[in-house]
Amino acid sequence: MTKSSDDRAILAANRAFYAAFESLDLDKMAEAWLQEGSITCVHPGWARLAGWGPVMKSWEDIFASAFRVEITVTDETVRSTGDLAWVTCTEHLETHGYDGVSHGAVEATNIFERRDGKWYVVHHHGSPLVRSPETGSEQLQ
Amino acid sequence: MTKSSDDRAILAANRAFYAAFESLDLDKMAEAWLQEGSITCVHPGWARLAGWGPVMKSWEDIFASAFRVEITVTDETVRSTGDLAWVTCTEHLETHGYDGVSHGAVEATNIFERRDGKWYVVHHHGSPLVRSPETGSEQLQ
Repeated sequence: MTKSSDDRAILAANRAFYAAFESLDLDKMAEAWLQEGSITCVHPGWARLAGWGPVMKSWEDIFASAFRVEITVTDETVRSTGDLAWVTCTEHLETHGYDGVSHGAVEATNIFERRDGKWYVVHHHGSPLVRSPETGSEQLQ
Repeated sequence: MTKSSDDRAILAANRAFYAAFESLDLDKMAEAWLQEGSITCVHPGWARLAGWGPVMKSWEDIFASAFRVEITVTDETVRSTGDLAWVTCTEHLETHGYDGVSHGAVEATNIFERRDGKWYVVHHHGSPLVRSPETGSEQLQ
């Protein structure tokens, strides 16, 4: 398998992760992750979660708090060595919840491991991208 | 080389990165990173930076804004495959700047690549850990 077909498969796994997020379907999100105690997840502003149970519970809580989420992913970079890969990207989220519609941008680092030919998320780290209230553009804090 | 000696070398590289941060010495920080255009860095609240120049400029700016920084790193996890490794950890920072002393906690994902036997940082992602003003403990946002 060439490097570029690896990259395509890794980016497809990254897209599948965000499609699961948008679906608000915990079963789909569970399919995207490696079911192991070593997986970790940092949601924006949250402490790091470790292990299958805590990570899935966090998605359950996030999904329960939203009616609908639309995510546009931009600026993806991908690197891999063997069966380990990492992607950086920017998530632009429109979230419809009980208190109305909110917009936010998140910088993400997603790490994947390949098992039996399939790439699984083993770590997700999202951090809030601070927006300028004056311009609405994303910039430094 | 056994896995556990790899882990020790990776954790040593992680400690060297934070020692460079505490030193506020740009040369030391430069030694910790792989000098390539593909390196990336997300500081807490910042947009992602890519490439040697922007990443080093960001450290120069951070170092210029502090007299002294003390960092305690806790809860390190390490995973690696071949020449790619990633560490998660929590940074507890005490920063002495022009406007006094501030304390903060940051969740970090650090990714390393091995070149000629040495592990270099290729990606750093730090995100603010929100503290409860009532208890002072770290908790969900």
